[in-house]
Amino acid sequence: MEKKLTVDVCLSPQLYPVYHKDDHIVVVIDVLRATSAICTAFEHGVEKMIPVATIEEATEYKKQGFIVGAERNGFAIEGFDFGNSPYSYINEALKGQTVVISTTNGTQAIEAARHSYKIVVGAFTNISALCEWLASQQRNVLLLCSGWKNRFNLEDSLFAGAVTERLVGTGHFRTGDAALAMASLYSVAKKNPYRFLHNSSHAERLAAMGLKADIKYCMQTDLTKAIPVLEGKHLIRLS
Amino acid sequence: MEKKLTVDVCLSPQLYPVYHKDDHIVVVIDVLRATSAICTAFEHGVEKMIPVATIEEATEYKKQGFIVGAERNGFAIEGFDFGNSPYSYINEALKGQTVVISTTNGTQAIEAARHSYKIVVGAFTNISALCEWLASQQRNVLLLCSGWKNRFNLEDSLFAGAVTERLVGTGHFRTGDAALAMASLYSVAKKNPYRFLHNSSHAERLAAMGLKADIKYCMQTDLTKAIPVLEGKHLIRLS
Repeated sequence: MEKKLTVDVCLSPQLYPVYHKDDHIVVVIDVLRATSAICTAFEHGVEKMIPVATIEEATEYKKQGFIVGAERNGFAIEGFDFGNSPYSYINEALKGQTVVISTTNGTQAIEAARHSYKIVVGAFTNISALCEWLASQQRNVLLLCSGWKNRFNLEDSLFAGAVTERLVGTGHFRTGDAALAMASLYSVAKKNPYRFLHNSSHAERLAAMGLKADIKYCMQTDLTKAIPVLEGKHLIRLS
Repeated sequence: MEKKLTVDVCLSPQLYPVYHKDDHIVVVIDVLRATSAICTAFEHGVEKMIPVATIEEATEYKKQGFIVGAERNGFAIEGFDFGNSPYSYINEALKGQTVVISTTNGTQAIEAARHSYKIVVGAFTNISALCEWLASQQRNVLLLCSGWKNRFNLEDSLFAGAVTERLVGTGHFRTGDAALAMASLYSVAKKNPYRFLHNSSHAERLAAMGLKADIKYCMQTDLTKAIPVLEGKHLIRLS
């Protein structure tokens, strides 16, 4: 019998150390909105991105003349070029450019997993390309949810469940407990994930900020085939 | 409109600090098997229990002549009186006694939350008594899953979902994201939680150790009305 690969889910960047293995592929997930925005940026011609965890680093890059997106608690930070709305990254002026990005949760998750074998970026907007690529790699997969300030969140967990369902569907993956649970959660929500998310704390937060259009955008599937991958300090387009 | 109370779920003791609030009631959950065993002990006449996080502390109590249960990785530890099988706590000789207990996950979770307003112990075996009491307290509730070595596990999450369902059913609670997700998970599993758990890593581990009877025992509801509560270093029976 073929030995199956494992897909599991880490529900908070703070738990990454207990899930770390030297040889797995880590998918960083921050559906609302960092990883959705990053996928959008590559789809629309950004050449490289530099994810940084702190505002201090973002400020340093800004001083050096880089284009910098910076967001905390849902708001773009004054003094930078934009925040993490995907729409900010659909911009002719960004084509071929390197863009620095720092966000409340997503870039923290990338930082937490920085020393893993490979880090790629996932969102509903690139889900099919991502899952096909993951299925072709013959490696264990860890889906790392950015959550909200190290808490569990609904949108990242749903996405982790969606990816788990697809990988298990290939017949080559078995699930860890968290992946099994998130796939069950997704099975409840998948008829209308947007509606399911209506109850989530962060969707509520963003809607209260007038960002419903962003939420709708981020819940769309397959807007791009771009799979951003971390190479050193840069995210580049894998495919 | 009445302001609702909040029920949320913390999926790993390591995340407790990000969920901590000064005034919430914490329910510590380690369905397989520590909190099930603790409820059983009180049902069968144990008067006090002393949960300790380390084997060193357990050894110290043993030297002082205490009865001590100690388990790591599913096994009872040599030199102690028993491990954390609930059946070990159904014993005439334990009536009226103080029993020290140290386990892989459950007693670590108690330790993590030690400075919260109130800590009670939950398991399927006391679920109705627990939920009725929680509903009567007019306080926010945090369901703290012990997990497995700080990882998410299926059985504790399912139980957290079951409790969430009941508290939301009173009309007085709203859910955090994790509670909402675990209630959805429970809605998938509740027709046959034992069967659902069949896929969980820890149930597999215990079954491989010949402990299926323990799993079946721990998945039974309402074997006791005992609600163990932490007072200083002791667990005592609240009701």
